[in-house]
Amino acid sequence: MDYKEHIQIINDYPVKGVQFKDITPLMQNGEVYQQAIDEMAVYVKSKNVDVIAAPEARGFVVGCPIAYTLNKSFVPVRKSGKLPRMVVETNYGLEYGKASLAIHKDAINPGDRVLITDDLLATGGTIDATIQLVEELGGEVVGCAFLIELAYLEHGEKLQNYDVYSLMTYN
Amino acid sequence: MDYKEHIQIINDYPVKGVQFKDITPLMQNGEVYQQAIDEMAVYVKSKNVDVIAAPEARGFVVGCPIAYTLNKSFVPVRKSGKLPRMVVETNYGLEYGKASLAIHKDAINPGDRVLITDDLLATGGTIDATIQLVEELGGEVVGCAFLIELAYLEHGEKLQNYDVYSLMTYN
Repeated sequence: MDYKEHIQIINDYPVKGVQFKDITPLMQNGEVYQQAIDEMAVYVKSKNVDVIAAPEARGFVVGCPIAYTLNKSFVPVRKSGKLPRMVVETNYGLEYGKASLAIHKDAINPGDRVLITDDLLATGGTIDATIQLVEELGGEVVGCAFLIELAYLEHGEKLQNYDVYSLMTYN
Repeated sequence: MDYKEHIQIINDYPVKGVQFKDITPLMQNGEVYQQAIDEMAVYVKSKNVDVIAAPEARGFVVGCPIAYTLNKSFVPVRKSGKLPRMVVETNYGLEYGKASLAIHKDAINPGDRVLITDDLLATGGTIDATIQLVEELGGEVVGCAFLIELAYLEHGEKLQNYDVYSLMTYN
């Protein structure tokens, strides 16, 4: 299937010069959404994971159905102040702007095999931050899975040490 | 299954007097999460829906796997400024605080049978706002499904005209 037919490109959003990849048309097509998740889940299953972690909010769109269909633990990675119990936190830079992310301290046990997923890999800031939190809790990041990878952006050095899967790539 | 065993109650979060229901322990247990979604999906399927709409971010945790497993359209309802294309928007009151929500104009077609889902039904502000947006686009709200209903709070008059399903109820 050509999933890119279901991605809408928005020029200069949210800031000038960015070509935003809008995944909502893909989600709005039930069959395409299901097939995309199933294809990502084949990769995730091959990594023999204990936990699927995803940053809010668009990471939930891929991470939750993958965790559901594989019968695995889903761990939300949220902006600071959104999780009610003890967390570890980190600040990081985005493709545009800055942010902070947090994860519950008891969400990952030392030695857990953790798969990190998000809708989009751009400069890798969100994923680097998520990897840092998972590793701080003793989890082993066994892979990173994305709906879309922007191959024309530098993803940062950290991701070079990890297995990365993308359903779609934009060059 | 007693799903409440997997909900952690946090007193005085995020503000004094609120007993926050933390659903992350439920999501972190892959089998419990899958079973909860499957049980909600039985209700959703019975409503013969075209579209599943859910407010970010916790609504995605229930809405996305339900849409995935039923092979239905998933429509995200997001905070203002988060959706890249033409939207309809509304302001509303929360159990604590205020917010605004938006939905893509092309996300729902007139006559679509729409199921709205979220993690929690408290005062109903988020759901009222979501119903308003769906109906503004001509969608028919055929039901509302929640992981948790706080029956000790007033949900507002609007919800009285809709079919409401909750997996768990706190009295």
